Amino acid sequence: MNTRHEITLLSPESIDGFQSIHLTGTEAGGDWSVRSRILHGGLQEGVEVVEINNGHLSFSVLASRGMGIWKGQCGEVTLGWNSPVKMPVHPKFINEQERGGLGWLKGFNEWFVRCGINSMGAPGTDVVLDYSGNEMEVPLTLHGKIANIPAHAVSLTVTDKEIILRGDVDETMMFGYALRLHTEIRTEFGSGAMSITDTVTNLGDNPVEHEMLYHINYGETILEEGSRFIAPYKKVVPRDPRSTEGGVDTYNVYGPSQIGFVEQAYLHQLAGTESEQETLVMLQNADATQATVLRYSLDDFPCFTLWKNPAGKKDGYVTGLEPATNFPNSRRFERQQGRVISLQGGESRTTVMKIEALEDPQAIENAAAEIEKLQATVEGTLEPQPLPDFSG
Amino acid sequence: MNTRHEITLLSPESIDGFQSIHLTGTEAGGDWSVRSRILHGGLQEGVEVVEINNGHLSFSVLASRGMGIWKGQCGEVTLGWNSPVKMPVHPKFINEQERGGLGWLKGFNEWFVRCGINSMGAPGTDVVLDYSGNEMEVPLTLHGKIANIPAHAVSLTVTDKEIILRGDVDETMMFGYALRLHTEIRTEFGSGAMSITDTVTNLGDNPVEHEMLYHINYGETILEEGSRFIAPYKKVVPRDPRSTEGGVDTYNVYGPSQIGFVEQAYLHQLAGTESEQETLVMLQNADATQATVLRYSLDDFPCFTLWKNPAGKKDGYVTGLEPATNFPNSRRFERQQGRVISLQGGESRTTVMKIEALEDPQAIENAAAEIEKLQATVEGTLEPQPLPDFSG
Amino acid sequence: MNTRHEITLLSPESIDGFQSIHLTGTEAGGDWSVRSRILHGGLQEGVEVVEINNGHLSFSVLASRGMGIWKGQCGEVTLGWNSPVKMPVHPKFINEQERGGLGWLKGFNEWFVRCGINSMGAPGTDVVLDYSGNEMEVPLTLHGKIANIPAHAVSLTVTDKEIILRGDVDETMMFGYALRLHTEIRTEFGSGAMSITDTVTNLGDNPVEHEMLYHINYGETILEEGSRFIAPYKKVVPRDPRSTEGGVDTYNVYGPSQIGFVEQAYLHQLAGTESEQETLVMLQNADATQATVLRYSLDDFPCFTLWKNPAGKKDGYVTGLEPATNFPNSRRFERQQGRVISLQGGESRTTVMKIEALEDPQAIENAAAEIEKLQATVEGTLEPQPLPDFSG
Repeated sequence: MNTRHEITLLSPESIDGFQSIHLTGTEAGGDWSVRSRILHGGLQEGVEVVEINNGHLSFSVLASRGMGIWKGQCGEVTLGWNSPVKMPVHPKFINEQERGGLGWLKGFNEWFVRCGINSMGAPGTDVVLDYSGNEMEVPLTLHGKIANIPAHAVSLTVTDKEIILRGDVDETMMFGYALRLHTEIRTEFGSGAMSITDTVTNLGDNPVEHEMLYHINYGETILEEGSRFIAPYKKVVPRDPRSTEGGVDTYNVYGPSQIGFVEQAYLHQLAGTESEQETLVMLQNADATQATVLRYSLDDFPCFTLWKNPAGKKDGYVTGLEPATNFPNSRRFERQQGRVISLQGGESRTTVMKIEALEDPQAIENAAAEIEKLQATVEGTLEPQPLPDFSG
Repeated sequence: MNTRHEITLLSPESIDGFQSIHLTGTEAGGDWSVRSRILHGGLQEGVEVVEINNGHLSFSVLASRGMGIWKGQCGEVTLGWNSPVKMPVHPKFINEQERGGLGWLKGFNEWFVRCGINSMGAPGTDVVLDYSGNEMEVPLTLHGKIANIPAHAVSLTVTDKEIILRGDVDETMMFGYALRLHTEIRTEFGSGAMSITDTVTNLGDNPVEHEMLYHINYGETILEEGSRFIAPYKKVVPRDPRSTEGGVDTYNVYGPSQIGFVEQAYLHQLAGTESEQETLVMLQNADATQATVLRYSLDDFPCFTLWKNPAGKKDGYVTGLEPATNFPNSRRFERQQGRVISLQGGESRTTVMKIEALEDPQAIENAAAEIEKLQATVEGTLEPQPLPDFSG
Repeated sequence: MNTRHEITLLSPESIDGFQSIHLTGTEAGGDWSVRSRILHGGLQEGVEVVEINNGHLSFSVLASRGMGIWKGQCGEVTLGWNSPVKMPVHPKFINEQERGGLGWLKGFNEWFVRCGINSMGAPGTDVVLDYSGNEMEVPLTLHGKIANIPAHAVSLTVTDKEIILRGDVDETMMFGYALRLHTEIRTEFGSGAMSITDTVTNLGDNPVEHEMLYHINYGETILEEGSRFIAPYKKVVPRDPRSTEGGVDTYNVYGPSQIGFVEQAYLHQLAGTESEQETLVMLQNADATQATVLRYSLDDFPCFTLWKNPAGKKDGYVTGLEPATNFPNSRRFERQQGRVISLQGGESRTTVMKIEALEDPQAIENAAAEIEKLQATVEGTLEPQPLPDFSG
């Protein structure tokens, strides 16, 4: 593997800010490109974006929003959704505490958003230590901070095989936590897939809690009436009474866009391969000609949540596939259930997520068969009602 | 009408940020100019401003502060005031929730400020729906957000007759609201007047509440001891007991600057023309040689508030003329009174406000006569005490 | 004294932003330099820094963080510490209200930080007047705002004797306060010392409360096991029960780095010279080969706090020397004790602080003798327990 380009796009040591580049080439029968630039106007003023096109699959990474991914495209398949929030929002404009801890929603419009990394999930009061070591109640905000922290270091590598974007994001506070996210986003030329390898490190000496959820969101084109979510489940639990409406039995099938639709969520325990705990989930359109697949290890992300929000097309018509270290309840609740990770001083944790866009009915059938095979290894249970240890 | 210049100053699609331009010319016997630039230093770092001079009237639009207008000048007439906040404040430095929901006051120093557009008025708790459709109590902050959202699109048109500045500002939130303000600020060469045409659109599918108030503020030169506010009123109601002090009968006359003065406010129902509900109000200086007039339709802005704050000259010596969709009480209170507008999905609402600077005693006399004529069509009532449906 | 350079680095009137300069020269046997630049990446994006090297002592002033001083170096002596917060944080990313009013800690990593200037100290509820003159309870946040307000004016003077950096920072709010900090940081060529002359002015007409604390922080190299703090005290009072642990008698000696250490604080009344109330305090390393000395007048800063936090080396291993107008309790408590200053309309208050880095055992011995001489003029009391008028 030969390295063709090795470019520092952003470094805290450099006298220069984010670099605007434009690389192009032809590989694997396609024209690839990488373009980086800074967005302007309104709340996107200053957002640093890296647009990667491997010749087949393209996507835009928002360095300024914790290395989240704004949107992607693979042939006819759209990776992303239309939010009422029209443009990427620079973190300097976000107040997470707004609207009762829901300020995160003012910047929510990406295809791939990390939630965490010290806390994520529903807003709620939690107990932390103040600077004098005294317990204090503080309001944790929806889905934590990492999506609203700009990366301080971003670099690009292009080899003769793939494009690799790396970034570092610090979530730190004196008397609080010192967590660093290092991400590596890789995609091979001509491929319909990409991988996201995240390493979270506790830079401090004290143990620190860590939660991570990938909020991976799809609207049109994959989401439509008749779209279907398929996963090898051990157990599926509706999050709340609302999520039992319409019947849990058909929870994985999507109805039409409905103005005023109230979201539903389904908490999953998934089945994985015996050896590596590898699993996969798929969202496919109505006639199974478009799909997206997530592949990952249950060791990395033991909890999965399906979020259904087929609301009005202009109000955020969207569904979320959400692999995570735990369920997106308040951190206090998740701690009580023993699901919150603690990283020791200096400890790192590395996870891998593969995302595929499928445009070929045969590939979709194959993935469905693969899921079916995993499903056959366990007895799947659809719980008709919420369970007290799954949500609360 | 021939277009001479058509310039995009800011576009979210452009690779460039806010454009610095400097246009000049001579028209209607005056030298006109338009200059755009970015302010630097302290809390004004990054503020995008467009300075327009029609050859007679000049004013500075703050694109970064929701297209508000910082200050203006027309001959000897100063349009604006001196706030303890010395420079325009970039929204990235404003936390509306500060000081019990009064954070808006840290950026308050403009001549013309829009309050709204999803809520405005006094801070107060209101009930909204969270992402799960559950009611939640949230603290709404003073005068809403629109003044602290940067425009994402700004363009300039210069014809052989007038200068037109247009801007778009989005106030949006997933699971909240999706409102867009489009404004057109027009001024003819050599004129002492300008017009502001605002269109607010609900970009979403769900109905959304909408409140708008124009906070139009004057200190010296128009405000001085003996200045007088004149309006054709059906009813004037003091907002609170404090506003009855000094006598409601003379509410429209200004005393001297008084260190420690506590603000007073008077809520107005105005009279308009029978056909179009057109009205006008005027603030004039002591000897009626300087004045400002607002002209608008009561269909657009049925409520008017006069804000009196002749405090110390260095503490914000100012009075506000405030046409609005409703009174600047908390949104909850205004909803209870049936005064809050709701925009249906896709619905737009367009309003027009004309602002004039008068430097000629005869013109001021004419405007006073015009107001008197409207006053003669209705019986005006000065309420001696606050009324429960006007403020609370 | 001849002026060699007189440079405006930042002015709110200028069409240009912060100037990047690089001056060098040789003086007093050393190569001096001044370099100004803007930092990039992550939360330091946009931070304006001025790096001053007098040929012997070097330090970096953060114009964007209220003219605080990030870190310094004098020969082998490091002036500063390692915070879990790795880079200077631009104020646009700070929400002081976060984590129960502790948001200030997300930007805390400087050697020299001003706390204030309208309030400082522990977070706590206080009563202020709203815009209608009514009392309202508001939560004041840890250590106030001044460290998170960018300077709006910065200028540099280089004479044949010294380097002088000046800056202005406004802390203002309509219906609140209008305070301006003007600072002058001076250092002579080849010297190991610098002085900070601060003038705080009430720009308004109404009286305004004012609190100021200098949070001057040291980790390695001066801080190590066996380091010692020396001051001429009248009275030393532990802040809380925690600060009595380990014995108040040896409060001024530092133990080893200890992961999970909970901070201790000691409130001092110091002795000063009879004529000018001049005092000095010193922090020295274990073998008294490195030290730092603060010299100032008790008229300027009557209260002194020693903050001990020898925690894990990666969690913020640090001690703070904190001269102040009052103790860093909540403003409400300090007001009750009669320690909060009020500035009348237009009033200014000027203070001077000299900071020295000592690298020579003899110089350290001399300073210790100087302190001892002052100590001999008073009877020093070490209180074994907290006192109700010192902390609460």
